[in-house]
Amino acid sequence: MCRWMAWHGQPMLLEELLFKPEHGLVEQSLHSRMGAETTNGDGFGVGWYDDEPEPGAYRSVQPAWGDANLRHLAGHIRSPLFLSHVRATSGTPIQQTNCHPFHHQRWLFVHNGVIAGFHDLRRDLMLAVDPALFPHIQGSTDSEVLFYLALTQGLVDDPIAALERTLGIVEAVASSHGVEGAVQASIGVSDGERLWAVRYATSETPRTLFVSADVDAVRRQHPDRERLQMLSEGDRIVVSEPLVDLAGAWHELRPSSALAVDPDGTLHHRRFHPAAPAEHAWEPLTAA
Amino acid sequence: MCRWMAWHGQPMLLEELLFKPEHGLVEQSLHSRMGAETTNGDGFGVGWYDDEPEPGAYRSVQPAWGDANLRHLAGHIRSPLFLSHVRATSGTPIQQTNCHPFHHQRWLFVHNGVIAGFHDLRRDLMLAVDPALFPHIQGSTDSEVLFYLALTQGLVDDPIAALERTLGIVEAVASSHGVEGAVQASIGVSDGERLWAVRYATSETPRTLFVSADVDAVRRQHPDRERLQMLSEGDRIVVSEPLVDLAGAWHELRPSSALAVDPDGTLHHRRFHPAAPAEHAWEPLTAA
Amino acid sequence: MCRWMAWHGQPMLLEELLFKPEHGLVEQSLHSRMGAETTNGDGFGVGWYDDEPEPGAYRSVQPAWGDANLRHLAGHIRSPLFLSHVRATSGTPIQQTNCHPFHHQRWLFVHNGVIAGFHDLRRDLMLAVDPALFPHIQGSTDSEVLFYLALTQGLVDDPIAALERTLGIVEAVASSHGVEGAVQASIGVSDGERLWAVRYATSETPRTLFVSADVDAVRRQHPDRERLQMLSEGDRIVVSEPLVDLAGAWHELRPSSALAVDPDGTLHHRRFHPAAPAEHAWEPLTAA
Amino acid sequence: MCRWMAWHGQPMLLEELLFKPEHGLVEQSLHSRMGAETTNGDGFGVGWYDDEPEPGAYRSVQPAWGDANLRHLAGHIRSPLFLSHVRATSGTPIQQTNCHPFHHQRWLFVHNGVIAGFHDLRRDLMLAVDPALFPHIQGSTDSEVLFYLALTQGLVDDPIAALERTLGIVEAVASSHGVEGAVQASIGVSDGERLWAVRYATSETPRTLFVSADVDAVRRQHPDRERLQMLSEGDRIVVSEPLVDLAGAWHELRPSSALAVDPDGTLHHRRFHPAAPAEHAWEPLTAA
Repeated sequence: MCRWMAWHGQPMLLEELLFKPEHGLVEQSLHSRMGAETTNGDGFGVGWYDDEPEPGAYRSVQPAWGDANLRHLAGHIRSPLFLSHVRATSGTPIQQTNCHPFHHQRWLFVHNGVIAGFHDLRRDLMLAVDPALFPHIQGSTDSEVLFYLALTQGLVDDPIAALERTLGIVEAVASSHGVEGAVQASIGVSDGERLWAVRYATSETPRTLFVSADVDAVRRQHPDRERLQMLSEGDRIVVSEPLVDLAGAWHELRPSSALAVDPDGTLHHRRFHPAAPAEHAWEPLTAA
Repeated sequence: MCRWMAWHGQPMLLEELLFKPEHGLVEQSLHSRMGAETTNGDGFGVGWYDDEPEPGAYRSVQPAWGDANLRHLAGHIRSPLFLSHVRATSGTPIQQTNCHPFHHQRWLFVHNGVIAGFHDLRRDLMLAVDPALFPHIQGSTDSEVLFYLALTQGLVDDPIAALERTLGIVEAVASSHGVEGAVQASIGVSDGERLWAVRYATSETPRTLFVSADVDAVRRQHPDRERLQMLSEGDRIVVSEPLVDLAGAWHELRPSSALAVDPDGTLHHRRFHPAAPAEHAWEPLTAA
Repeated sequence: MCRWMAWHGQPMLLEELLFKPEHGLVEQSLHSRMGAETTNGDGFGVGWYDDEPEPGAYRSVQPAWGDANLRHLAGHIRSPLFLSHVRATSGTPIQQTNCHPFHHQRWLFVHNGVIAGFHDLRRDLMLAVDPALFPHIQGSTDSEVLFYLALTQGLVDDPIAALERTLGIVEAVASSHGVEGAVQASIGVSDGERLWAVRYATSETPRTLFVSADVDAVRRQHPDRERLQMLSEGDRIVVSEPLVDLAGAWHELRPSSALAVDPDGTLHHRRFHPAAPAEHAWEPLTAA
Repeated sequence: MCRWMAWHGQPMLLEELLFKPEHGLVEQSLHSRMGAETTNGDGFGVGWYDDEPEPGAYRSVQPAWGDANLRHLAGHIRSPLFLSHVRATSGTPIQQTNCHPFHHQRWLFVHNGVIAGFHDLRRDLMLAVDPALFPHIQGSTDSEVLFYLALTQGLVDDPIAALERTLGIVEAVASSHGVEGAVQASIGVSDGERLWAVRYATSETPRTLFVSADVDAVRRQHPDRERLQMLSEGDRIVVSEPLVDLAGAWHELRPSSALAVDPDGTLHHRRFHPAAPAEHAWEPLTAA
């Protein structure tokens, strides 16, 4: 059921966060402690922003811990904003097009969780995707459909509201199929400037989600920790499982809440509630 | 745009047809002579029937010519009926779920060709798939959608008629989108007993398709060709490009025609014409 | 550090032993309980004997649990004698040529364990390989070098004695480099007729190794266990970790011991001690 | 038998040279015109220099034309000095450790060509590698052994002289095995500051090798070619096959010659002759 992390701050080599922390994402691929699955070996991906118009991406079906290319790339790619994901499939094939992050134009999207009964809901959910976006769906995961539903629902204009409508649609479609507990989700999304994250589940405790605490206070508390000293005040890390290196330095997001990170690192949070999709109103039938 | 072959006859090691002929399918993956693309290096697949309830399958994203596993498997798997395919993508990702043959229960399906403008038609074509079959679509190719459309249209009951309806639907959907020359197809399909093949294109010369000629006559003509002497009378090979080993021993299927191979090897052929889907009749609106 | 299993008995579908037991090898790839590493996700391999002159093989760098081809093949390949292996690398690359079983002519070889300090010993050990065999080494593992050393030392004539000489050479070379505790090994080897296994470590407790107990007694004890009832008297399973399905039905091999399974399933065991390589005797220099 | 290219000049996105030219390296992977093999689909690699102490590298067993990650990476990695290679195997396995460029500390190495009879010479050539370097050999190609032989022979101090000694050793070892026409080679090597290239064959016409001509003159001749106008005076491209975009703008290296590109782009060339390794002189046997 996956693990993910996002970095928002000073330009940073990917390896500083993927490989070097004691309990970094690559180690989590082999031994996650908090996830529903302890091994996340069904694929890896990282997407990063730089000066190019669209984000870069590297997605691989190899387990992150054993991917020689990833190790090289992580030591050479430097970015102020990136999202990375290790996958444990809930049944869909292990292939690059099923690896996160999913990307569309400037947007990157990662998801840890599952849509219950997705096999049965898939057709109805894909039909709810904007027909102009439909052909861009390349894989077969629930997560990619969530992303394209969110784009359909206005992700570009108001990401959190769009995700509320998206999960509202999923819950409504699930309900119409008699599926309970439809959504399990910790979601990360970015446009290259801001970073948003959501923690939500229809009826269970949702997957965990943490954001790094005030960096300045952490640095003062741990003057002997070299990696912490290199952090700047606006640097933010959002993770589904804390990095041991920074134990005690995390805020846990409450269930049913959303987080936004501004370009300068300022944090905002608010409640998150899926929105029931509006009834289709009747309109008078007039000539075109 | 792919190449494929099918074997129907005495139990045969896969390598006898994939690797050993002078211009066998694996060599065609590297140097096809008649295909639209000369290199078919974007994946490989073979499906075979044996005593198990469903056919076996091996599909790989590696080029056939360099796949060490394929070489081993082809020297150990023996089957009286198998279909094999080398892929040259027309744009969809290189992943196992996009490799042929596609399989569903007892059925195997291979396709050489393309649906013009598939990117734009994909949603409408997927909507025409039986909702119960929809979630089984795992990849993103036009070919897999053709297979599930054909299953929707009754492939199990009458394969050729179902394919006529399937291509009729594709041409109708294409026409409604202003796409011309919708279908390019040489198709092979089997249920483990019989083998069917279709050669058809909406407006161009369709991909080639050949069936092996009367084996007895071929053996007498070429008494010095060892591989030919091991063929039995009911053995049939259907190929998109002739194997050099058997030059002069092939019947070319006419455009817009279909072929059927009976369990005993008897050949049938008939004209093939896509069937326009029935108009949706107007019905009186009454209370449910 | 890997897990492996071998089957010797009636012809059996691979999936009966790889996938169906409660704690079969594929599940061990994800959650091993007794191995030094709990995840064995760095490659998979199976080699099997049939009527062809050399054994078949399928080796993959994907984790066994997620390999769609393995699932298909295991449901279609039936063999009276096969060896299978899940890998956890101790540092060498994840590539097919580093996956077990290694094969040479009729021989298959699997290894769970490690040669300490292999990086430093590799050159000397490769030099001890018969120059005629040297170019057949395709990968970079300690295990493959062990196999070619054993072939050099007479594996074909007396497998256990050859393995004693092989590990003797390894311990001598290690000693000359100041490396202690050179060998950790549970080894399986077969020529298609017989099966041999060794459990040995230079100075620690060696990796575990088990052979199935008297099948007849097991069947009588568990009349309600369907899978056990299908076993015949000469059927033998050798595993590095017991299958839960057959709990209580295993003999554990003692450290420093070897096992042989005759063609009819008869078991033999004896002590196993690496043989110090003979000193190179001085000989008079005479004309050739 | 491969194709390669190297860039030395202003920082450049990889895609500008790999994907965008009419006959760029990725297109050459599918349709080479001058190589001994027309398809180079057995792996790809690129190594690049940036501000990190060692070069970055991405190597893949997928054909370059179909590698989705390569397409993304090439659009985001910018470097003033990189070497890239498409592979057509002469028999060794298709695996990342057999893909070029090979790297060791600051050094990158690519090779188009073959050592005749390498299967038989491999052991002797590997024995000639410095024992301290031996364990770094991870793959099974002739090319990687050439690289480690060259490092053994002083590549770091004088690359061209080291390559002359290296090929001299290969020719001597081949001769002792009765192998004729031992070397076919176009080689590229860099330390991140300079770039060297060699064109040599023992007895046949060696693989082709070209260096871009005076950029200033080319720009004036083709004022309408946008891509040419962005080139600066010190920019250099070395290729095994010319890019169509720059037709008429290439110098072909003579057989048996070497090229050096200075940090400022200045070109040097000289004759290249393998050096017979010094006879092992007899020395008096005295106490140590």
